[in-house]
Amino acid sequence: MVDKKLSGAGLRGQSAGETSLCTVGKSGSGLTYRGYDVADLADNATFEEVAFLLFEGELPNQQQLDKYKTELKALRDLPQALKEVLQRIPASAHPMDVMRTGCSFLGNLEPEEDFTQQNHAANRLLAAFPAIMCYWYRFSHEGVEIDCVTQEDSIAGHFLTLLNGKAPSAQHQKVMDVSLILYAEHEFNASTFTARVCASTLSDMFSCITGAIGTLRGPLHGGANEAAMDMIQKFTSPADAKTQMAGMLERKEKIMGFGHAIYRTSDPRNVIIKAWSEKLAKENGDTSLYDISVACEEFMWDSKKLFCNADFFHASAYHFMGIPTKLFTPIFVCSRLTGWAAHVMEQRSNNRIIRPSADYIGEEPRKVTPIAQR
Amino acid sequence: MVDKKLSGAGLRGQSAGETSLCTVGKSGSGLTYRGYDVADLADNATFEEVAFLLFEGELPNQQQLDKYKTELKALRDLPQALKEVLQRIPASAHPMDVMRTGCSFLGNLEPEEDFTQQNHAANRLLAAFPAIMCYWYRFSHEGVEIDCVTQEDSIAGHFLTLLNGKAPSAQHQKVMDVSLILYAEHEFNASTFTARVCASTLSDMFSCITGAIGTLRGPLHGGANEAAMDMIQKFTSPADAKTQMAGMLERKEKIMGFGHAIYRTSDPRNVIIKAWSEKLAKENGDTSLYDISVACEEFMWDSKKLFCNADFFHASAYHFMGIPTKLFTPIFVCSRLTGWAAHVMEQRSNNRIIRPSADYIGEEPRKVTPIAQR
Repeated sequence: MVDKKLSGAGLRGQSAGETSLCTVGKSGSGLTYRGYDVADLADNATFEEVAFLLFEGELPNQQQLDKYKTELKALRDLPQALKEVLQRIPASAHPMDVMRTGCSFLGNLEPEEDFTQQNHAANRLLAAFPAIMCYWYRFSHEGVEIDCVTQEDSIAGHFLTLLNGKAPSAQHQKVMDVSLILYAEHEFNASTFTARVCASTLSDMFSCITGAIGTLRGPLHGGANEAAMDMIQKFTSPADAKTQMAGMLERKEKIMGFGHAIYRTSDPRNVIIKAWSEKLAKENGDTSLYDISVACEEFMWDSKKLFCNADFFHASAYHFMGIPTKLFTPIFVCSRLTGWAAHVMEQRSNNRIIRPSADYIGEEPRKVTPIAQR
Repeated sequence: MVDKKLSGAGLRGQSAGETSLCTVGKSGSGLTYRGYDVADLADNATFEEVAFLLFEGELPNQQQLDKYKTELKALRDLPQALKEVLQRIPASAHPMDVMRTGCSFLGNLEPEEDFTQQNHAANRLLAAFPAIMCYWYRFSHEGVEIDCVTQEDSIAGHFLTLLNGKAPSAQHQKVMDVSLILYAEHEFNASTFTARVCASTLSDMFSCITGAIGTLRGPLHGGANEAAMDMIQKFTSPADAKTQMAGMLERKEKIMGFGHAIYRTSDPRNVIIKAWSEKLAKENGDTSLYDISVACEEFMWDSKKLFCNADFFHASAYHFMGIPTKLFTPIFVCSRLTGWAAHVMEQRSNNRIIRPSADYIGEEPRKVTPIAQR
């Protein structure tokens, strides 16, 4: 009976609403944004085009894209008060707490006054998140007060420039752009569902995104690519990886970056980021981390029939680009923000407050005993 | 068909989990916390006892209560960095944005490192929220940097002292205490459900509460007492109230503070706060705002068979105590935090990630058109 209850727990398999934004695993392994396969988008579009698609419903033409990118570029800088807040967050803080706080604080300074401003609010966060992450990171870890404005054409290039203090190679810019596309949207996952529950009370965009960040922070949701990185860094060779993973399985330790709640046979994002990880490894001259990752993939498939999800080869790909592991999940925020905001807009367009019921399993009615007799 | 879909929207009537914390409207109008009727608790317990009950499962004895209150009192002050953040939030900000940001920022400085610290994190927020609200309010509105520590015995007295710069009367302290009890917990409402979705990814307490604040901010959830206050302040007499409300109904304007999503015939909290509002009116010497409120209650019942919910007489009660209208919903936060945190603890104790599905109503599969051809 407890088992039966648990199998229906977490609203698994229950519809909580309608969406036009995304299908996940409809044919067992596919992922589409507004009807476009994510692989097609990764090959033939940029992250800004995907953001436009999610917010506006259609891919932009060149003129629309140019206008949109110009708008985003003008929104990159942070208000001085926000910089001063970020300066007060210690280096020891969880980077997701920084993102959550940066988003929340910005909502005080530049509130979404009504829903006609929803696209502006979403674009403001899309443009400002790289600076929120990098300003805090470089101030707290390196003592550097960075300039939050760059002339980089793309969000991907802008972020890598803020992080490294110099413009990225064309290949690094491209891989980051693809990564932002892959993580942009994923239907009613827990963080997106949080954004929709918040939106359903007709709260503002900053509240919805702040709540979603807090939910993504949990280790059952975001953070798998960080955990994968921590693991593969401990392996010295492909052979060592297989030996050590066998030991982990034997000790029933959790191995992150494999399998998925919805995909059954593969994660459509894996083949894409894996190919880019391989290219970066070759550019890097030392392919060992990539080779170790491939060994992990083979081992998990052979021993458990578990496939790599989107997170696993993101670990090595991000690492080859010199990104500190603790910033992996904040990058996820910079990308998924687009999906969250699109879901907020969609929830608002046909809203009913999300207010489920609960099964009561507590005490029967009882009377308060005066404190002297307790 | 659309109607049919909408009637099931918002997960209305669907169970999203189990709880031992609360029943709402089980007999049509009741509200119980862990089996105790809220009226019984309002008569025979204090807010600190209710917080203890929600967190620990049982009402405290005198020794436990003394120890608990001593612990809470030691957690009242704010870190200097948090004060400096609150100083940077303008007076024009939405007070709920301030609460959300204060909570989120504190999570950077004093993170919940693991779940053994969950009670401490909840108690820290319970003790610190009155100061977060009042420090910002008085700094931004009056230019005063308040001392965040008082010697007041209760959270209710502490809050009123911080707000007014002097200790409240025994009656004001009592009414605020009762109010905090009435708002403490209400099953799977939207903000509490947000906290549980966030908790289900095993995120930290500060993220869960931050998300819940953002959800309560929405006008379909919190804020009804503020809206009721704005309305009754416009009425010059009981007769004027009835005339103007008739006009509002005719113009189909929304009237806040009446009816409820779950209660059918009355809100059990109304009779309690209404009685206190009457006492405060008499103490005040000018009962007109109370008389107007009673006229509103009669009118809505006679014309629409709608009853006052918890929020309606809270408006006049808070007003009689000199509380600025814009702080009404932040007080709700100071109270409901106890319910939110108790739900986070309960979710963690038997967790499965909350990840529903969605019905796809979007575009059929399509191919990306190269941008030059769009």
